[in-house]
Amino acid sequence: MKKYTEMTLEELKDEHAVLEDEYKKYQSMNLKLDMSRGKPCREQLDISMGMMDALNSHVDLSCEDGTDCRNYGLLSGIPEAKVLLGDMMENHPDNIIIYGNSSLNVMYDTVARAMTHGIMGGTPWCKLDKVKFLCPSPGYDRHFAITEYFGIEMIVVPMTPEGPDMDMVEDLVSKDEAIKGIWCVPKYSNPQGYTYSDETVMRFARLQPAAKDFRIFWDNAYGIHHLYEDRQEYLPEILAECKKAGNPDMVYKFASTSKITFPGSGIACLATSLNNLEDIKNQLKNQTIGHDKVNQLRHVRFFKDIHGMTEHMKKHAAIIRPKFEAVEQILEDELGGLGVGEWTKPIGGYFIGFDSLPGCAKAIVARAKKAGVVMTDAGATYPYHKDPNDSNIRIAPTFPPVESLKTAAQLFALCVKLVSCEKLIAEHE
Amino acid sequence: MKKYTEMTLEELKDEHAVLEDEYKKYQSMNLKLDMSRGKPCREQLDISMGMMDALNSHVDLSCEDGTDCRNYGLLSGIPEAKVLLGDMMENHPDNIIIYGNSSLNVMYDTVARAMTHGIMGGTPWCKLDKVKFLCPSPGYDRHFAITEYFGIEMIVVPMTPEGPDMDMVEDLVSKDEAIKGIWCVPKYSNPQGYTYSDETVMRFARLQPAAKDFRIFWDNAYGIHHLYEDRQEYLPEILAECKKAGNPDMVYKFASTSKITFPGSGIACLATSLNNLEDIKNQLKNQTIGHDKVNQLRHVRFFKDIHGMTEHMKKHAAIIRPKFEAVEQILEDELGGLGVGEWTKPIGGYFIGFDSLPGCAKAIVARAKKAGVVMTDAGATYPYHKDPNDSNIRIAPTFPPVESLKTAAQLFALCVKLVSCEKLIAEHE
Repeated sequence: MKKYTEMTLEELKDEHAVLEDEYKKYQSMNLKLDMSRGKPCREQLDISMGMMDALNSHVDLSCEDGTDCRNYGLLSGIPEAKVLLGDMMENHPDNIIIYGNSSLNVMYDTVARAMTHGIMGGTPWCKLDKVKFLCPSPGYDRHFAITEYFGIEMIVVPMTPEGPDMDMVEDLVSKDEAIKGIWCVPKYSNPQGYTYSDETVMRFARLQPAAKDFRIFWDNAYGIHHLYEDRQEYLPEILAECKKAGNPDMVYKFASTSKITFPGSGIACLATSLNNLEDIKNQLKNQTIGHDKVNQLRHVRFFKDIHGMTEHMKKHAAIIRPKFEAVEQILEDELGGLGVGEWTKPIGGYFIGFDSLPGCAKAIVARAKKAGVVMTDAGATYPYHKDPNDSNIRIAPTFPPVESLKTAAQLFALCVKLVSCEKLIAEHE
Repeated sequence: MKKYTEMTLEELKDEHAVLEDEYKKYQSMNLKLDMSRGKPCREQLDISMGMMDALNSHVDLSCEDGTDCRNYGLLSGIPEAKVLLGDMMENHPDNIIIYGNSSLNVMYDTVARAMTHGIMGGTPWCKLDKVKFLCPSPGYDRHFAITEYFGIEMIVVPMTPEGPDMDMVEDLVSKDEAIKGIWCVPKYSNPQGYTYSDETVMRFARLQPAAKDFRIFWDNAYGIHHLYEDRQEYLPEILAECKKAGNPDMVYKFASTSKITFPGSGIACLATSLNNLEDIKNQLKNQTIGHDKVNQLRHVRFFKDIHGMTEHMKKHAAIIRPKFEAVEQILEDELGGLGVGEWTKPIGGYFIGFDSLPGCAKAIVARAKKAGVVMTDAGATYPYHKDPNDSNIRIAPTFPPVESLKTAAQLFALCVKLVSCEKLIAEHE
């Protein structure tokens, strides 16, 4: 088919009429489909049901060091959970705190602590006139929601397939002491599925921030979330790189089992330098006596070790890989060669990033919604929900059953074509 | 036996010599006992082991409204957990948020939120020159730790068997806009086991604070933690009373199942007005996608309803009642009539409050420690760890096995006598 951008006005109008007819057919189907959030599907949850049998009333609920996990204690987590999640994060157990069920909560608390108490003796951020964060974008909307909630000014840094624009990052952090952090999803990024290149990671580790209390918020949410056994991306370990570069305290690394076991009932963790850990524990001891150790134990008993977890991830991949492939195939079949959009082909993580012609994303998402398919709000992948090009859309293929997903993806592609047509017609007129 | 205070110097010295000999015997026993924290004992944890069987891989993990508890969602908790904990707290389910495993964490977050964002549109506390809290004392050390951590000035309000000195509370809150809160453990208080009288509760509900954003932090940790079936204290429901008094938004009420099921793995909750809930949810949605719903479901499936929970509490009482009675008997046998100390005889909760002669508490705790019995630090029951009389000691009888507990209580009583003797001798000389 001819590129839309090369069509005459008449051709565009003809095409638009055909698309409108097709759209009406979808509308009459009363669809109710959701491609908005990175939620595992039922089949994915089912593969972790064995975890519900990992503990029962007949087993000893003591952990390795003899602590009764049912009672108070062990602020930073049980030893064997630190080993398991340490292996998952590629960090030493001593560098890890195991938290509750939500790494988002850990990130929020990390920002909140810096606001009220500062970092390692630094001025509390709430006492400063201005605090800024760098936000590689498109990025994760819930990261941006945290910094927005705390009134932190967010500066967009463009994402590339190798990671954030590091020239810009280096330049900004070295000059501006008000820049206190940067949000990163370094592997199979949300929403594009990009993995930072080795060079990007090294440049992060070697940053020379003006602010002593600058921290990299390294949300490695998809560290072991590969879609393929034979094609996996590799990410250098940031704590080790920072240490080598003489910046041992510059990074907070977050992860959880939310997309490994149950999103509502996993365990979250933070890995960082011993100095940072000490700083954090001085706060944490006032906040709680400890997190849910029984659930930590449940996870360890279920997986045994990192190999158990790796095998488990293959089951996830087997379920969601066909979904990614189905969406990508439909996008290729429907939009390939039309010049109306580009999309990523990630080999891990939870999302496909889509870029429409400029100025079309909001209209596409609105059109899809009108026909019963919910996408993440256009703009959500940028700070303040403001996508300067109005072109980025996050596609989350994991949750719907594959047949519904195909329908949703078909409709989405149709909406892209419709809105693109309308834009080009308007430009002709 | 003669009152120590009525003994001559010689009599005191004779008595002291006898006590020292006895103390040496204890020292030679190499004891290692702990009466310091309000921890349930193993037998108490064992009665909740059935909860580990409440869910398994064959049961449906959906809650009443059809939500799959394994997945993301339901920020404020599953409906049936709100009903169960609503019944426990005597509040409507609509007024409740179910949190993670720690009510202390909820209290901390409540203060933290007020610091950074204020309450219902009020100035964030971190922007104010001075923020003060009233601290009925003796009170709970972890409450005081939170306010101390946030640099909130703590004002001691004396506790009475009817609750805090309400003349003082009314006077202070009506005059001083910097007073933003008060810590309360209204039922079977920590550490004295006192329950606020009806009048105290009514006076709380009718407070006219100068600060619009003044809140009562009502930590009803021991609401259903009776020691006796036939003797139970009654506490008017504070939310209802505040509403009646025209102060519907003045209270945050906290509770958890930490001392009902497992301290490490219970569920916590907050009950408050709909206005407050809206304010809180506006923050909470940035902090987490939701708490552990599977554990909420586990609790509901285990207890079924409030009657199940009430029956369960009788089992706890049967285990810990003899421990309270043993300690009280020993105190009576060893110290009765000596005029060297007074103690409470609570019929619920987790603690016995002990008051020594002025200036003796630290020395008593140190003596006990030297012979292998750990008590809560003297002073811990007061803000900044400063007991003005150096006389209050918290006794936590639940954790040790009853025989060890008796030994510990004997030793404690001996240390009280020893230190009191020494004090009186010094006064004579």
